[in-house]
Amino acid sequence: MVQLAVSVGFMSEISLDRTKSVVALLYSGELQKTIKEEFEEKCPSLDTVREELRFIIEKSYFGSDSVLVFHNVNELVKKFGKILSWEMVMSLYAIEMDDSVDKQEVGGGCSMKNGGESTKDEKKSEKKKRKKKTLGRGTAIVRQILMDWFRSTNDAAIDNVSALVQWAEQLSPCFDLDDAVLGAILEKIKEIVESNETRRLPKIPKGTRDFGKDQMAIRVRAFSIINKVFKRHGAVALDTPVFELRETLTGKYGEDSKLIYDLADQGGELCSLRYDLTVPFARHVAMNNISSLKRYQIAKVYRRDNPSKGRYREFYQCDFDIAGQYEVMQPDFEVIRVLTELLDELNIGDYEVKVNHRKLLDGMLEICGVPSEKLRTVCSSIDKLDKQSFEQVKRELVEEKGLAAEITDRIGSFVKKRGSPLELLSELKGMDSPFLGHSGSSSALNELELLFKALEKSKCLGKIVFDLSLARGLDYYTGMIFEAVFKGATQVGSIAAGGRYDNLVGMFSGKQVPAVGVSLGIERVFTIMEQLHKERNEVIRAMDTQVLVAILNKDLLLASELVSPLWDAKIETEFGLEKRARNYIDEAIKSGIPWVVFVGESELERGVLKLKNIKTHQEEDIPRERFVKEIQSRLLNNV
Amino acid sequence: MVQLAVSVGFMSEISLDRTKSVVALLYSGELQKTIKEEFEEKCPSLDTVREELRFIIEKSYFGSDSVLVFHNVNELVKKFGKILSWEMVMSLYAIEMDDSVDKQEVGGGCSMKNGGESTKDEKKSEKKKRKKKTLGRGTAIVRQILMDWFRSTNDAAIDNVSALVQWAEQLSPCFDLDDAVLGAILEKIKEIVESNETRRLPKIPKGTRDFGKDQMAIRVRAFSIINKVFKRHGAVALDTPVFELRETLTGKYGEDSKLIYDLADQGGELCSLRYDLTVPFARHVAMNNISSLKRYQIAKVYRRDNPSKGRYREFYQCDFDIAGQYEVMQPDFEVIRVLTELLDELNIGDYEVKVNHRKLLDGMLEICGVPSEKLRTVCSSIDKLDKQSFEQVKRELVEEKGLAAEITDRIGSFVKKRGSPLELLSELKGMDSPFLGHSGSSSALNELELLFKALEKSKCLGKIVFDLSLARGLDYYTGMIFEAVFKGATQVGSIAAGGRYDNLVGMFSGKQVPAVGVSLGIERVFTIMEQLHKERNEVIRAMDTQVLVAILNKDLLLASELVSPLWDAKIETEFGLEKRARNYIDEAIKSGIPWVVFVGESELERGVLKLKNIKTHQEEDIPRERFVKEIQSRLLNNV
Repeated sequence: MVQLAVSVGFMSEISLDRTKSVVALLYSGELQKTIKEEFEEKCPSLDTVREELRFIIEKSYFGSDSVLVFHNVNELVKKFGKILSWEMVMSLYAIEMDDSVDKQEVGGGCSMKNGGESTKDEKKSEKKKRKKKTLGRGTAIVRQILMDWFRSTNDAAIDNVSALVQWAEQLSPCFDLDDAVLGAILEKIKEIVESNETRRLPKIPKGTRDFGKDQMAIRVRAFSIINKVFKRHGAVALDTPVFELRETLTGKYGEDSKLIYDLADQGGELCSLRYDLTVPFARHVAMNNISSLKRYQIAKVYRRDNPSKGRYREFYQCDFDIAGQYEVMQPDFEVIRVLTELLDELNIGDYEVKVNHRKLLDGMLEICGVPSEKLRTVCSSIDKLDKQSFEQVKRELVEEKGLAAEITDRIGSFVKKRGSPLELLSELKGMDSPFLGHSGSSSALNELELLFKALEKSKCLGKIVFDLSLARGLDYYTGMIFEAVFKGATQVGSIAAGGRYDNLVGMFSGKQVPAVGVSLGIERVFTIMEQLHKERNEVIRAMDTQVLVAILNKDLLLASELVSPLWDAKIETEFGLEKRARNYIDEAIKSGIPWVVFVGESELERGVLKLKNIKTHQEEDIPRERFVKEIQSRLLNNV
Repeated sequence: MVQLAVSVGFMSEISLDRTKSVVALLYSGELQKTIKEEFEEKCPSLDTVREELRFIIEKSYFGSDSVLVFHNVNELVKKFGKILSWEMVMSLYAIEMDDSVDKQEVGGGCSMKNGGESTKDEKKSEKKKRKKKTLGRGTAIVRQILMDWFRSTNDAAIDNVSALVQWAEQLSPCFDLDDAVLGAILEKIKEIVESNETRRLPKIPKGTRDFGKDQMAIRVRAFSIINKVFKRHGAVALDTPVFELRETLTGKYGEDSKLIYDLADQGGELCSLRYDLTVPFARHVAMNNISSLKRYQIAKVYRRDNPSKGRYREFYQCDFDIAGQYEVMQPDFEVIRVLTELLDELNIGDYEVKVNHRKLLDGMLEICGVPSEKLRTVCSSIDKLDKQSFEQVKRELVEEKGLAAEITDRIGSFVKKRGSPLELLSELKGMDSPFLGHSGSSSALNELELLFKALEKSKCLGKIVFDLSLARGLDYYTGMIFEAVFKGATQVGSIAAGGRYDNLVGMFSGKQVPAVGVSLGIERVFTIMEQLHKERNEVIRAMDTQVLVAILNKDLLLASELVSPLWDAKIETEFGLEKRARNYIDEAIKSGIPWVVFVGESELERGVLKLKNIKTHQEEDIPRERFVKEIQSRLLNNV
């Protein structure tokens, strides 16, 4: 039974992958989007089903009630059917609506030609003739089976969304394990997947990327700026393992814990990939019994998020944290100052830093009448205010979290408050302010006042906005919190965030070490930088090569003799062994190499090398016995 | 049943962890080593048992013969017992033989004192009195139970190895699940583990490390040197995800594949942590249909190796590879040249680079009479010659791999050959050389000749040794192979290796792109560098701070006003808010900060700041209105 469910899961995954890629290929018009919405509303998510399957397998594994297991698996299979039918109908619709797709009928017996090469050739010639998209073999067959089935059961053509919804619901119960349609589809797809396997290009995991030379060039430049800012503030580097013991991460991220990547249990300890750099930092401080540390770390973190939302599953974070006992607001001030230096020096455009205080927030909610056990959950709702309207959040607070409407309205009047830090502060500290009578809020206001004044002296208060709606998702913050938002053209939202977390180290060692820090979401910064480079038409060279040595007679030994002294002199040098001079010049222009040294028969006879300046097109002969010095001096003088 | 096995596995793991740590603590004398060898010979490895357990669980899961499952689990439980008893006897022996261990008897009822604090105090006072090691509570109790059991069944004292071996075998069958001794031990250990849980410091996964500021300072310096060498040769940076699809890694590492870390199946794709940087590079080249790329990558790789051997499970590799069609030996020469530049510029001491050629090796084995299907397996045996004597390898070849003794002897006469590259080469190319008649070997010799001559022109042939015993473990090499060995005092063995792999890219895309590369095992280089720094008493500053601003009146706003302009001027500055001037000077000395700026009442009144040079002890007043410029000029002039 379990085996059955697993194999169904597996097969549906294969077909899903294929149909999904078809959909991705063809999504374009508004109509397709409508279907997508319909689909997402009516269809259970694959993740949910998978979760349930795992649960059932684990249960059956320790021998629970077998009738129940059977029932559950059966339910699951139905859900799979529903997903499958929706995915298929949706894809089919996308295909049928797209006129540029070649919908050649495939014979019922599926007498396809075998062999990758011939199919390729065929495709090519078809493309030339009709300029149409050709469906993959798998897609074409599935389409055929579905169309046959559709024609046998329906009168109308597939041309409007409501017919489609209806059809998906008709199709759904057919995805019975014994049903011939499902069987045929699975069988065909299996065949095709296997035959494709051999000539498929390799892939990388969803939500991950390779960074090639151009992206790396921008990254290296950004990291160098960030490094300098961190070191300017006396921070030392720390490097921690990419995975931690699972117990280190559990209980730190609230609802987001489901996004943690676990390593497989291959015997030994249970580990997970790090989710951020803050928890490993706190673990390091606790483990080594450190009482004070100012550290930075630039490293990748891992979140099993939905990559279709444009989020990545592996991305860099740049963290700067100060742990230890200091005067009030001393490190908090420095952390925000570091943040402004980072964003100013990365030179990506206008931004603002929203600031609030967890204790002020708690006080505010208490004043509004929120019961203390609901503080955190109300906070997470408020945190959504940057993406949702207050009306949406209000609905969540009243309907899901059971808050009285008048409490919500009171919250509403507070969270609207945002503006110039010192002005809003004096309003909140004003005569009839409800915060004065609340000790937590009142001391929070004093802390913020000191912070704002210090930032004013530091001439960066202009970037700060005091925003009572800022709540931050993570549970571990205990004091000042903040979030930087990019205000330029590229829409990326929050680009950095942080705050004070005085209890996190204590969760590990029992010994409290207060801490405050900032995390820069550098991927979004890169997106902006790449955009800016495109706009400004800037080119960052991915390589440093200064000299290209052209050995026209293709002699490796001669090359070694000439190039090695350049390397010895630490001059960035590449060499080539080919005859055509033009190729070297093209290569130098493409890669931005300023100098080419030509070594041909005539130069060898005369005991010289011909040095060409690519920018000025000037050529000159330099004596072979002192060519390294000649080149060196030209590089130094940048001539 | 399965549940039973799992929980036994779990419990034995807990106790194993504890006893192992005791053993690790006490290992010192030769006797203990003898036991360890006995143990490893007679006792099944825990990994084997674990593998079997997984296998059984998977089988039972798909409903196989339940009697067989029962039988298998029973067998496993016996093996667990054997491991447990061996581990315990071994630990017990180590404890009994160590006179420095305090072997206070624990009452049978185990009336231990509770509470971490009192136990700590007790330990401290005991330590002072006797200067003895105190056993942990868990170890003490297990020891007591075992000693009681031992005394009840044996006459002799635990004082020699053979008695011990006998005893371990006696003890083994007692580890029945129903046995009182096992039950008591497991129960007690569980109690202690749980009571320890609350006051335990956090840990990191075995085989991983945090790198703190001093280690990072050395690493940053080394990475910068390595980066420069790579860029000097025109390489571009590439960054790939830390995990790859599992199918990308399978079939690339031969026997070592068992060391690959898998991510848990949480739905979606099956992924594994990267094992090296070569396979992801080949995957990148294939995936992007690249025909030529010279790239470097400095990143961590992951191997689920046994950390007790002093190996790490997470470590850096620095790779430089050239993919593409070039003239014969052109990129091979550059890769070895890069390797010598790296090792020379890292300045870690003397080294040699062993070079050989896969085709020469294959030819040699064929000439010796090794059947072609045994070429690769014989290669892996030969690869062990750097750690084992020829006699040991010969035994493996004859007894395990079924090679005739005379073939082995012929191999022996070849693999002894190592020496100055051009000399050995002319011997092998000499008149009566068997290689001349073998086309593969003969072209390999020509390739090596070109390589050696190019390296001679490059003045780095002096570091090269032509070594016919070099085989390299990995399957994917197809041409020239090499390995760099450190010859200094610190024993680290191989520090870099590489070679030509012309078929790896083709395994992914079907399109062959030849490639050659080097991988620097930087962890071993760090070990050497750290050692050298210790010997030379060198200090690398972990932070760049130039100025420490001492705000003696503890005023954060004043601090912000004075420190911010220094940060604006990009001067590395820290500040403190405390009264005692001495603390600042101590801090500056400790952290190597050259300048301290004191701001006290008297300075404020006079409109000056007091600037102290920590090295010369000189102090001077500088006017507040131009203090940034004054400091800047002193830093520039390094006065």
